Amino acid sequence: MPARIIDGRALADDICRRIRHDAEALAARGRRPCLAGVLVGDDPGSHMYAASQAGQAERVGITHRLIHLPETTTAEGLGAALATLNADSTVSGVLLYQPLPPSLSPPQQRGAVGSPFSALIAPEKDVEGLHPMNLGRLAQGQPALAPCTAAAAMACLRSTGVDLAGCEAVVIGRSPIVGRPLAMLLLVEHATVTLCHTRTRDLAAHSRRADVLMAAAGKPGVIGREHVREDAIVIDVGTHRVSVDDGRGGRRTRTIGDVRYDEVAEVAGWITPVPGGVGPVTVAMLLSNVVAAASQTGSSSPHR
Amino acid sequence: MPARIIDGRALADDICRRIRHDAEALAARGRRPCLAGVLVGDDPGSHMYAASQAGQAERVGITHRLIHLPETTTAEGLGAALATLNADSTVSGVLLYQPLPPSLSPPQQRGAVGSPFSALIAPEKDVEGLHPMNLGRLAQGQPALAPCTAAAAMACLRSTGVDLAGCEAVVIGRSPIVGRPLAMLLLVEHATVTLCHTRTRDLAAHSRRADVLMAAAGKPGVIGREHVREDAIVIDVGTHRVSVDDGRGGRRTRTIGDVRYDEVAEVAGWITPVPGGVGPVTVAMLLSNVVAAASQTGSSSPHR
Repeated sequence: MPARIIDGRALADDICRRIRHDAEALAARGRRPCLAGVLVGDDPGSHMYAASQAGQAERVGITHRLIHLPETTTAEGLGAALATLNADSTVSGVLLYQPLPPSLSPPQQRGAVGSPFSALIAPEKDVEGLHPMNLGRLAQGQPALAPCTAAAAMACLRSTGVDLAGCEAVVIGRSPIVGRPLAMLLLVEHATVTLCHTRTRDLAAHSRRADVLMAAAGKPGVIGREHVREDAIVIDVGTHRVSVDDGRGGRRTRTIGDVRYDEVAEVAGWITPVPGGVGPVTVAMLLSNVVAAASQTGSSSPHR
Repeated sequence: MPARIIDGRALADDICRRIRHDAEALAARGRRPCLAGVLVGDDPGSHMYAASQAGQAERVGITHRLIHLPETTTAEGLGAALATLNADSTVSGVLLYQPLPPSLSPPQQRGAVGSPFSALIAPEKDVEGLHPMNLGRLAQGQPALAPCTAAAAMACLRSTGVDLAGCEAVVIGRSPIVGRPLAMLLLVEHATVTLCHTRTRDLAAHSRRADVLMAAAGKPGVIGREHVREDAIVIDVGTHRVSVDDGRGGRRTRTIGDVRYDEVAEVAGWITPVPGGVGPVTVAMLLSNVVAAASQTGSSSPHR
């Protein structure tokens, strides 16, 4: 029997309905959630992405404020802009659009997540969940703003309704923004968690044990039928634009995941498609983080 | 062939020699490392522990400053004392002795690590490695002050000289101060890591796969021969005082670990004894964190 499909678009719609409800409830108390996006320079892709994000935010009742800084902005200038947003009580969440101009892009540090400037965003406004404070809280099982992609993968998984306590979860990929936070989120659900990566000796031996297989290897089509146990839940976190044969002697571009969908769908119990799986839910999780951040504004405890 | 023994006391002595060397080098540059211990009230155990720690610190060239606050100290008073130490550039590391008086011990929060007051210690002076910021940095693979017990278990493991890249590591126990940071530290060494816990279905099936078995279950003697693969490296993080038959019809107190040493030592390749394994190294790692914190003082980057 072919796998049941986890419909990421429908799930994102459900989540967005809940976000809209929560945003309006906050607005009624005079605290409409607001996402501030900081865009440095004139990268056309970033401008398109920001415009799309503004539209998505406004549709769920979240104000989007674009802070557009010139290409010539210095590190001090960017730091000051972020500090102003951190201190602004009308701003719930702050997002720094990538890429930054070359002058603000230092050589990548080992283990660095996003830009080093991301760490200048206050943890309680870090709606992308990139700040080490949020990952640390997550790892301690405390409330935190989780990285959006990891949170989206978990939302897809939970939508199956399958009880995760004691299940075998295998995460392929150990990136600080997907694999590692996913492992922590799976632990909270009481799964036994194995983290595999490029140095793992026998990947298939691990992945075939999995009741839940999280593919976050970042490599197109590396997970095939031979990696998957019958009836497993397969969540594909990868999104890759690849050039394929168009069947008429030419090439066309197609979006695929880490998983070879057609063959894995024949054995898995549940599967997320690419596109239309984890992707749309990731956008919803960013907006969900904005509402969560807005809900926390004004509350205080030794942990925040 | 019986297992080779990882001698924690000898390893701790080695580490302390290195710490002493580094501490004197810092002192020569006018920055002698200083550990400030904050002790609230009159718990006799805490006073004994503080005195012992002062002696150990001074032996390796680290100044120990005891800040003794009265039993009647308020939350604000304790917060202010910690803020003063955070701001004091002559203090490298801050340690809050447990237990705190009942008036300062709120009901334990889910996932809380140590006291909520621990989170008021500046992350760069958090020499116990309890602050979420340090766990987050660890999880992102960035430099961090690691929790002492997890760091000690890793030091014991590394002392074997075995190459960890691609090896199968199984961690039993998912506590925020041992199991989870251990998983992150093992990932940095490129091990494939499985985290098992009380909800794991078939513990022995996992642990018998392990080239490296980290026993941090917090339960005396739960790991036996049936859990261990031949030639595995077994690191026992547990320390339990138990009452045993003294062989003459009476009872005596004995310190044991999570591992049934005698039977596991017959199959393992390497093993840490209890006492004399991870325990003494843990004390050394605290002092090592003080020197690391002192080395960082005055340095600055977007990450610190």
